[in-house]
Amino acid sequence: MPTVPILADADLSPEARAVFEDIRRVRSTDFVNRFWRALANDPPLLKSTWERLKDVMGPGELDPLVKEMIYIAVSATNSCAYCIHSHSAAARAKGMTPAQHAELMAVIGMAATTNVLSAAMGIEPDPEFLVGETG
Amino acid sequence: MPTVPILADADLSPEARAVFEDIRRVRSTDFVNRFWRALANDPPLLKSTWERLKDVMGPGELDPLVKEMIYIAVSATNSCAYCIHSHSAAARAKGMTPAQHAELMAVIGMAATTNVLSAAMGIEPDPEFLVGETG
Amino acid sequence: MPTVPILADADLSPEARAVFEDIRRVRSTDFVNRFWRALANDPPLLKSTWERLKDVMGPGELDPLVKEMIYIAVSATNSCAYCIHSHSAAARAKGMTPAQHAELMAVIGMAATTNVLSAAMGIEPDPEFLVGETG
Amino acid sequence: MPTVPILADADLSPEARAVFEDIRRVRSTDFVNRFWRALANDPPLLKSTWERLKDVMGPGELDPLVKEMIYIAVSATNSCAYCIHSHSAAARAKGMTPAQHAELMAVIGMAATTNVLSAAMGIEPDPEFLVGETG
Amino acid sequence: MPTVPILADADLSPEARAVFEDIRRVRSTDFVNRFWRALANDPPLLKSTWERLKDVMGPGELDPLVKEMIYIAVSATNSCAYCIHSHSAAARAKGMTPAQHAELMAVIGMAATTNVLSAAMGIEPDPEFLVGETG
Amino acid sequence: MPTVPILADADLSPEARAVFEDIRRVRSTDFVNRFWRALANDPPLLKSTWERLKDVMGPGELDPLVKEMIYIAVSATNSCAYCIHSHSAAARAKGMTPAQHAELMAVIGMAATTNVLSAAMGIEPDPEFLVGETG
Repeated sequence: MPTVPILADADLSPEARAVFEDIRRVRSTDFVNRFWRALANDPPLLKSTWERLKDVMGPGELDPLVKEMIYIAVSATNSCAYCIHSHSAAARAKGMTPAQHAELMAVIGMAATTNVLSAAMGIEPDPEFLVGETG
Repeated sequence: MPTVPILADADLSPEARAVFEDIRRVRSTDFVNRFWRALANDPPLLKSTWERLKDVMGPGELDPLVKEMIYIAVSATNSCAYCIHSHSAAARAKGMTPAQHAELMAVIGMAATTNVLSAAMGIEPDPEFLVGETG
Repeated sequence: MPTVPILADADLSPEARAVFEDIRRVRSTDFVNRFWRALANDPPLLKSTWERLKDVMGPGELDPLVKEMIYIAVSATNSCAYCIHSHSAAARAKGMTPAQHAELMAVIGMAATTNVLSAAMGIEPDPEFLVGETG
Repeated sequence: MPTVPILADADLSPEARAVFEDIRRVRSTDFVNRFWRALANDPPLLKSTWERLKDVMGPGELDPLVKEMIYIAVSATNSCAYCIHSHSAAARAKGMTPAQHAELMAVIGMAATTNVLSAAMGIEPDPEFLVGETG
Repeated sequence: MPTVPILADADLSPEARAVFEDIRRVRSTDFVNRFWRALANDPPLLKSTWERLKDVMGPGELDPLVKEMIYIAVSATNSCAYCIHSHSAAARAKGMTPAQHAELMAVIGMAATTNVLSAAMGIEPDPEFLVGETG
Repeated sequence: MPTVPILADADLSPEARAVFEDIRRVRSTDFVNRFWRALANDPPLLKSTWERLKDVMGPGELDPLVKEMIYIAVSATNSCAYCIHSHSAAARAKGMTPAQHAELMAVIGMAATTNVLSAAMGIEPDPEFLVGETG
């Protein structure tokens, strides 16, 4: 039950249509998932979000699968069911094995525990962790 | 300003002392950070947390640096200043470059945006993402 | 699948019934949504929540539509699907246009990004932002 | 570094002063912590928050110490340093032992882990957990 | 729609089967909920999570029902629908009355409010809350 | 204590310097806050974040002060102290009165409560809130 219409291809404005063409080209698939079909109600938001995602998740310093796993970690922590599903599918498509998925979950679960324990104990970062200001 | 005392070595119970020795052995350093010194007020919680962390963050399916970056992603999403600092320091110690750190942050920031956009739009996962039940 | 029964009008206690009457009167509609029907299991909690909501969301310093958009911003950040839907409907009823909705989402998404980047970088507020204590 | 002034007793409006008197009376102490001194900038918000807190945390169905521990659990999960500290102090004042505090943290940490694992695995509640609608 | 298969008993590895037997023995029921059936894809993660849960939620310093209520508080704050449902069912099974459930929700709701107000006002913990370092 | 150096003007790369000049031009002030000085370690991330922020927070469908208040709402919900402070300062600079600030906080606090109550009660959105799919 979305708060905005999920647009079919026939409903797209020309600007949104151009973004969908780029999504299909970059991903080499005709499938465009609902996230983009919902954003397509506002073509500028669609375009800026896609351009930024394409840039961030494209070739860079980190392995593409690592980036998907980081995405899953953030999405699970934020309880974003949609993003967990879309990026788990993307990670599997990029070769994530069930054993890697399990270890990813173990790390996410461990971090959630020590995060909340640190908060509950109110501890300040040790000075040994310091990077410092130069300015 | 912690909610529990941060214990010095001299204040440790024998059970806590044994855990500290294992931390020092595994990490090859005499430095034991405050997180463990705060947990040391309850030796069983100290021991179970350390044993679990040692297991999860030890050799496995994922690269040790990748695991630290996943830890940072969860900790930043949970606003856990302590964990962000300790695991950013750990990631640097394991070779994270400034360029990798920047890309990690770009991915975390991107995920935070699409998480909240997905929530605001109330979209359900596409059936194409389905894994399915066998039971 | 609720954790408490969703009460029909016929199931209401007299105290809950009185609150429902006030909800219908203030909102000028016979429709009472599930949130109140779930809270109605505990009439005092129903009453205090409704009285507080009526006061906070009633006439005041901020435009009623602005208050609904702030409500959506908090609810999206908390991943509260129920509240996102109820307050998006309320905002539309108060005149929110699709273009305003899109800009609201753009701001929410931007804030989510800079929030997590600030956390990941561990930066302290600049002294220039200071208000100060008088006490 | 607050975003609003922290008011000293001499700065209070008559309405805020009356609330402070009630806080002092109910808590049997002259100390009024900063949370109320910050809220005192807006006497109606101060008054409604205090009245609600007094009602919720006053005598009821649950033990006062249990309520403080629930408060700590929510506050740690929300990373609210202020509330963690104020309610940990309140819980100690109500008799929370170090061993109870440790077990509270163990439960909070466990819940944080299974919460994020459940999210990462995208599982739906089992029908066996159902309460059902009556309406 | 899970991101991993929900395993039926016939699909379990011997290690997972042994954990399920322990779950059934400890809980005195044949019913094993989906959380464990999803974790069973990775028997070591299943085993470590169950062993830790059994330890944390078993006999200790706090009443078993209190621990379930703390679990609900964390799960509601994290918007974990699965855990809210499973632990609300567990709490009812351990004797939580509707009135206690309502008061639990009132405390959770109150804490959520003062958490976000404290954050919005940027207040630092009062020195009166201090426990202090010994190290 | 940041996890990356806070760069002084003298430390900036040419690309970062150009972004700082644009920040100063758009904001009509020489002051550049730490958020940008930390991001300046990675000029592309600095540039993309600033360009996006300038676009989102610039003239549009919503009043500039309303956008700052939405920013505060998200930041308070995420416990981002840095962003709460920077955007509270920006909102004051754009004319937010203390009474508006108080009402903003009242709405944020109310939303936090009903969000967590909705989660705790596990209620599904009413069909009356439906927008529907067209695709």
